[in-house]
Amino acid sequence: MTRQLHLNAFLMQNGHHEAAWRHPDTDPKRATTLQHYVELARTAERGKLDSLFLADGVALWGNVRYNSHNLFEPLTLLSALAGATEHIGLIATASTTYNEPYHLARKFASLDHLSGGRAGWNIVTSAGKDEALNFNRDARPAHELRYERATEFIEVVKKLWDSWEDDAAVIDKASGVYADTDLIHPIDHVGEHFQVRGPLNVPRPVQGHPLLVQAGSSETGKEYAARYAEAVFTAQQTFEEGKAFYDDVKARLGRHGRTPDEIKILPGISPILGRTEAEAREREAELNALITPEYGVRQLSNLLDHDLAGYPLDGPLPDVGTFTEGQQSRFDLVTGLARRENLTIRQLIERLAGGRGHRVFAGTPVQVADQLEHWFTAGAADGFNIMPPTLPGGLTDFVDLVVPELQRRGLFRTEYSASTLRGHYGLARPATRVKEHAA
Amino acid sequence: MTRQLHLNAFLMQNGHHEAAWRHPDTDPKRATTLQHYVELARTAERGKLDSLFLADGVALWGNVRYNSHNLFEPLTLLSALAGATEHIGLIATASTTYNEPYHLARKFASLDHLSGGRAGWNIVTSAGKDEALNFNRDARPAHELRYERATEFIEVVKKLWDSWEDDAAVIDKASGVYADTDLIHPIDHVGEHFQVRGPLNVPRPVQGHPLLVQAGSSETGKEYAARYAEAVFTAQQTFEEGKAFYDDVKARLGRHGRTPDEIKILPGISPILGRTEAEAREREAELNALITPEYGVRQLSNLLDHDLAGYPLDGPLPDVGTFTEGQQSRFDLVTGLARRENLTIRQLIERLAGGRGHRVFAGTPVQVADQLEHWFTAGAADGFNIMPPTLPGGLTDFVDLVVPELQRRGLFRTEYSASTLRGHYGLARPATRVKEHAA
Ligand SMILES: Cc1cc2nc3c(=O)[nH]c(=O)nc-3n(C[C@H](O)[C@H](O)[C@H](O)COP(=O)(O)O)c2cc1C
Ligand SMILES: Cc1cc2nc3c(=O)[nH]c(=O)nc-3n(C[C@H](O)[C@H](O)[C@H](O)COP(=O)(O)O)c2cc1C
Repeated sequence: MTRQLHLNAFLMQNGHHEAAWRHPDTDPKRATTLQHYVELARTAERGKLDSLFLADGVALWGNVRYNSHNLFEPLTLLSALAGATEHIGLIATASTTYNEPYHLARKFASLDHLSGGRAGWNIVTSAGKDEALNFNRDARPAHELRYERATEFIEVVKKLWDSWEDDAAVIDKASGVYADTDLIHPIDHVGEHFQVRGPLNVPRPVQGHPLLVQAGSSETGKEYAARYAEAVFTAQQTFEEGKAFYDDVKARLGRHGRTPDEIKILPGISPILGRTEAEAREREAELNALITPEYGVRQLSNLLDHDLAGYPLDGPLPDVGTFTEGQQSRFDLVTGLARRENLTIRQLIERLAGGRGHRVFAGTPVQVADQLEHWFTAGAADGFNIMPPTLPGGLTDFVDLVVPELQRRGLFRTEYSASTLRGHYGLARPATRVKEHAA
Repeated sequence: MTRQLHLNAFLMQNGHHEAAWRHPDTDPKRATTLQHYVELARTAERGKLDSLFLADGVALWGNVRYNSHNLFEPLTLLSALAGATEHIGLIATASTTYNEPYHLARKFASLDHLSGGRAGWNIVTSAGKDEALNFNRDARPAHELRYERATEFIEVVKKLWDSWEDDAAVIDKASGVYADTDLIHPIDHVGEHFQVRGPLNVPRPVQGHPLLVQAGSSETGKEYAARYAEAVFTAQQTFEEGKAFYDDVKARLGRHGRTPDEIKILPGISPILGRTEAEAREREAELNALITPEYGVRQLSNLLDHDLAGYPLDGPLPDVGTFTEGQQSRFDLVTGLARRENLTIRQLIERLAGGRGHRVFAGTPVQVADQLEHWFTAGAADGFNIMPPTLPGGLTDFVDLVVPELQRRGLFRTEYSASTLRGHYGLARPATRVKEHAA
């Protein structure tokens, strides 16, 4: 069998286009109900996708006057979806900056058990300015400090997941022994940021460890991914950039005693589909026409940390200086895009509205499949983070039109062959460390 | 219609009897699956019960060698049950000592939206010694300090729930206004324990505030309940004690500007059912015979903070002195029980094994209904916290045998008449504070 690509459905209330909720195809009231998400999850599972993913932030996101992105806490929602699905992986975002490792280890272990081994964790360090203000702080901790905490955090979490050896729960009615306490160990962690005795109060997860996902793109972020992540989300506008990122991250793995296939790199793409290319472009224009420029300018200003309110919408992007704070990679991506394609502020807003910096591609199902195949076979991706412009329509279209095309080309599974999220991504189940030490 | 009683199903893996998992009626492997809980939830809903409840602790609970109580994080599990049920309330325990208010406000708001207004929060301050050790501490904070934090915590959480006024999400496609930001307010809380700017990133919960439940029994705990709680769980062994507790808590409400019917008092009961009284007692004996005495002695020693390992099982409880630390009310309850009924250590262990200090009552469905009716009509309870000795069997029996008897007596609903948890308990939906201020 040829190498298979992996597909993750990145869900977001009404879709990834900023104006999705205004489009006639979406029903933004229904998008606040569990039923909406159940339908999306089942559609993705019908398409045999590897996983679902929910982003998260712990503050109002963007300007809620114009967008609909703020909603349910992802672990809560994914648990509700665990019961409504059977195969698909469930990846929730959670911050290492504003959580405690015991809680997160427990929640992901719980979700992993309840879903029969389908939990994944998108590890984020919370780059937003506002998040700190909801957690007893006046400002977000510095970038490097956030990653230091994230490093100790993941070490503690892994120790907690391993604090019950695999066979600890013997459940022997006759002898009255529920768990073999010789196989359950306190972790006695004492470090810079955390002091955690353990053990966890949930048996070892079905997958050993839930799948670890990461999307950092700074130097430190990429090193973190190379050390810990098993799947990487990334925003890449061009094949060349995507290929460079792919090679960069893969090359880092050896340093951490890992092989390149132990990490799956999944660039984002927002596919705007039409029966013809013209229809797809028309759909894109339709969505762009619904953008509120005031909101777009504000978003762009935030991204670039530079107030653009005074500049003409149809003029060029002014000199915004060099990166100061926020997300270095998004800053570079946006200024690069403006320069390369000589875009006006309005055009730039439209390009970002589609996928907040992720690649937007309007075309026929065959054209979309061509793009995915090209990136995949030419070594810029192990799969993709699919970001439908509208929901549920954009996901249904992808599943009904693009997935069969990928299957015809022998690039994507036609049935699930594994029962866990790790299984879908072809990743091994980690052994308990305790056993490794004993060996 | 006569005054109606309320019923909450307190779920626990294999049941509330310590030895439930060893009984031939339980399947402790299945009890670690979502399917088990879905079945329990649907059984409780078939019985028209007001709510389900899951306890929680953030450390291994008891000695896992002999018990099966440690498992899933309750909010995670209840979210999974939200999709599998339609009417029943979903009450999760969460600690104010080891959490941050923004996270909990968000999670309960999420569950409330996803379940259509069925979320409740059992507010605990985490009395366990071990929990602190998993959260960067060498010891649990002092009792009064825990309640001080709990007080500020709930104030912050309520402000966050109210940070979106009810009509804030206008979702107007035509004008492009998703939310009326004039109706969304930062909370700018700065206090002793927390600094939280807000607003929350989830719209106001369906119920305004998820139902607030509490089970404190110290003086401070009861004052906290009188000020904030809408339902109270409590362990009471005798009618007299139950009546005294009921009167005590109800009498406190006026001081906080509340009326007695704004709080529902729900003593726990573990009903061991049989077709005849003899059959019920046989069943109780069967369960007690499965207790591991070593475990019972350890549990009792912990409860009394006094090592009982050296004493003969069939001798009397030695002098354990006066209460030092842990749960004052459980200490009093256990020493009172031993003295009143002149119990040996083994007998005491058996009495506690049934419900960890909650009342255990073995009898026929009619006898159980008589007990409930007596406590209810004579003013010792507004309803009950039903703690089935084994699961699922003990819950199925209660629903099939006791509930119809209560319905025949006109004491319990035959159909749900409300769609929210507050509705089931006959409690009002709180107005947003912001509006109150403006009025
Ligand atoms: C597809 C994708 C999804 C992301 N989701 C989140 C998220 O849900 N929450 C969050 O705080 N950051 C999220 N991020 C941001 C990254 O975690 C990371 O903070 C950002 O790329 C900056 O990288 P750095 O932290 O290494 O500087 C996401 C990034 C990508 C590419
Ligand atoms: C039915 C019931 C359920 C309880 N559930 C929990 C629980 O899940 N987690 C917890 O830490 N404490 C739980 N408690 C303990 C109480 O929250 C409280 O800590 C205890 O009654 C001691 O009261 P005090 O804190 O006022 O001293 C429960 C108590 C009762 C009666």
